[in-house]
Amino acid sequence: MDFLTLCRTPALAVQVTIQPVDRLKVDAAILFSDILVLPEAMGMELVFMEGRGGPRFPHPLRSRSDIEKLTVPDPSSSLSYVLDALRMTRRELNGRVPLIGFAGAPWTLAAYMLEGRGTADFRHAKRMLYENPLDLHILLDKISRSTALYLRAAVEAGAQVIQLFDTWGGILGRDEFHEFSLRYIRQIIEALEDLAVPVIVYCRDAGRSLEDLAESGAHGVGLDWRVDLAAARLKVGAAVALQGNLDPLLLLARPERIDRAVQKLLLEFGPAAGHIFNLGHGILPDTPVENAAACVEAVRKHSAAIRRQPTPRWT
Amino acid sequence: MDFLTLCRTPALAVQVTIQPVDRLKVDAAILFSDILVLPEAMGMELVFMEGRGGPRFPHPLRSRSDIEKLTVPDPSSSLSYVLDALRMTRRELNGRVPLIGFAGAPWTLAAYMLEGRGTADFRHAKRMLYENPLDLHILLDKISRSTALYLRAAVEAGAQVIQLFDTWGGILGRDEFHEFSLRYIRQIIEALEDLAVPVIVYCRDAGRSLEDLAESGAHGVGLDWRVDLAAARLKVGAAVALQGNLDPLLLLARPERIDRAVQKLLLEFGPAAGHIFNLGHGILPDTPVENAAACVEAVRKHSAAIRRQPTPRWT
Repeated sequence: MDFLTLCRTPALAVQVTIQPVDRLKVDAAILFSDILVLPEAMGMELVFMEGRGGPRFPHPLRSRSDIEKLTVPDPSSSLSYVLDALRMTRRELNGRVPLIGFAGAPWTLAAYMLEGRGTADFRHAKRMLYENPLDLHILLDKISRSTALYLRAAVEAGAQVIQLFDTWGGILGRDEFHEFSLRYIRQIIEALEDLAVPVIVYCRDAGRSLEDLAESGAHGVGLDWRVDLAAARLKVGAAVALQGNLDPLLLLARPERIDRAVQKLLLEFGPAAGHIFNLGHGILPDTPVENAAACVEAVRKHSAAIRRQPTPRWT
Repeated sequence: MDFLTLCRTPALAVQVTIQPVDRLKVDAAILFSDILVLPEAMGMELVFMEGRGGPRFPHPLRSRSDIEKLTVPDPSSSLSYVLDALRMTRRELNGRVPLIGFAGAPWTLAAYMLEGRGTADFRHAKRMLYENPLDLHILLDKISRSTALYLRAAVEAGAQVIQLFDTWGGILGRDEFHEFSLRYIRQIIEALEDLAVPVIVYCRDAGRSLEDLAESGAHGVGLDWRVDLAAARLKVGAAVALQGNLDPLLLLARPERIDRAVQKLLLEFGPAAGHIFNLGHGILPDTPVENAAACVEAVRKHSAAIRRQPTPRWT
């Protein structure tokens, strides 16, 4: 049973989605899926080769005509398996915890679609950005419109929170990040405004563009493990919730070490509201389940202790 | 003729070092070498496999006893080929341009020594950091002492400027960056103080720790392509020179595009002194020579034009 088959089989995706709720007692469920199912629905072949990293596109986009062939898909047909999984999960959860749906940010999806897979320097994507920016804008706009439709359908199918993942925004210079990434993240958030559903934007390297992300219309900003939480809070004020940001590699350490790291992170943020504990990037596939459980337990223990402390008078 | 043979054969290393001065008319020569020759001199086997990325260590460090076996080498014997290349280059340059010597920053070298090569998450290096920080400190101290001796010998052999490259400082959280990277960079700079030679520290992701790097004792800070030059100058004041920071991938674009990008970058920095133009990371091996030449030419043309502008009265 490969990764994509799990994604495409609602009954299985539901099980994988609910396992962490049952076994780890986390406070929310995030749909088991992949950001690359949307480009597949737009017309790209997506394959998964065992032991060769994640899913990839064997025929990456190389020209304007490749981009023009892509469609803005109707999610109710080409992504019905995702919507079914959301509906079934929502029913199965039965109100225990909220359900999160997600999509890749347009720049991150475009980078994979132009490159085929994650690469060291994303040279094809950047080459289009530097040499044919108009082609890239056409692609990004198409992805953004597809994403907005997809996420609207996801919310209608039961997603109660939306996350956008911009894994590769951080490889861009500041001006390029604004023009090719942030602009389209805003476009999607605006398109979903009437649904009144919270949107969390995760951007690896968010440290550099924290204020901009906080003003993007997002309700929460996800931080990678390198951002200092207290400094981030000072920077953005109370405008958005902050989510993050334990180094995923800490979950390969001993449970006592995990406990200490979680405590340090929570103490740094302090007793104020507006923090959603999370890892600072995706969980590693070889993380021992008992370490993930130790992490959740540490969060419960230490955040309860921190919140029990009397609030200083001057606040 | 493989890469390491070029590094190890002074007569050839000299030729490769001087080529950019002759062909591109750059303002300084940087010795053709590799940061991993120092760990090799400390006792690690270093190999180069054609078409499989850069040089690597087939037997990475895995334990305290592996670390204890490493020596602090006498550069005049185990790194004599580098010192010979420096001496010969200095003679060959005959005062035309200054000669730069370099080393990897201790954390970056340790990361490679623990991992064997560049990896996606540097899990072995981070595991030691999180689980056995004392072992890592022992390693970092040994690397720092070796580096200080090596760079002192390099200066005595003819290097007129020293660069330290911390390619992987950016994967660390802020506290870890201070404890495991910056501290040892400072240690090396202090050890070289009496030589009165300028030291430039490059750190990918320097944007996050610019002020700290500016106070490290370095005379210049090298910036990656994602840092806004004008904002960086405002942050650090006139304390250090700033070096950088064109995206190396721009050198794969058309010469006209390179010209525009160079002009934008120089205009952003403005007419003030204290900017050393450079790429924001290592040049890509497949960069066309004529594009590199177009870049150098664009720097000369636009910086001359910018400096010809009258300085505003209020400065």
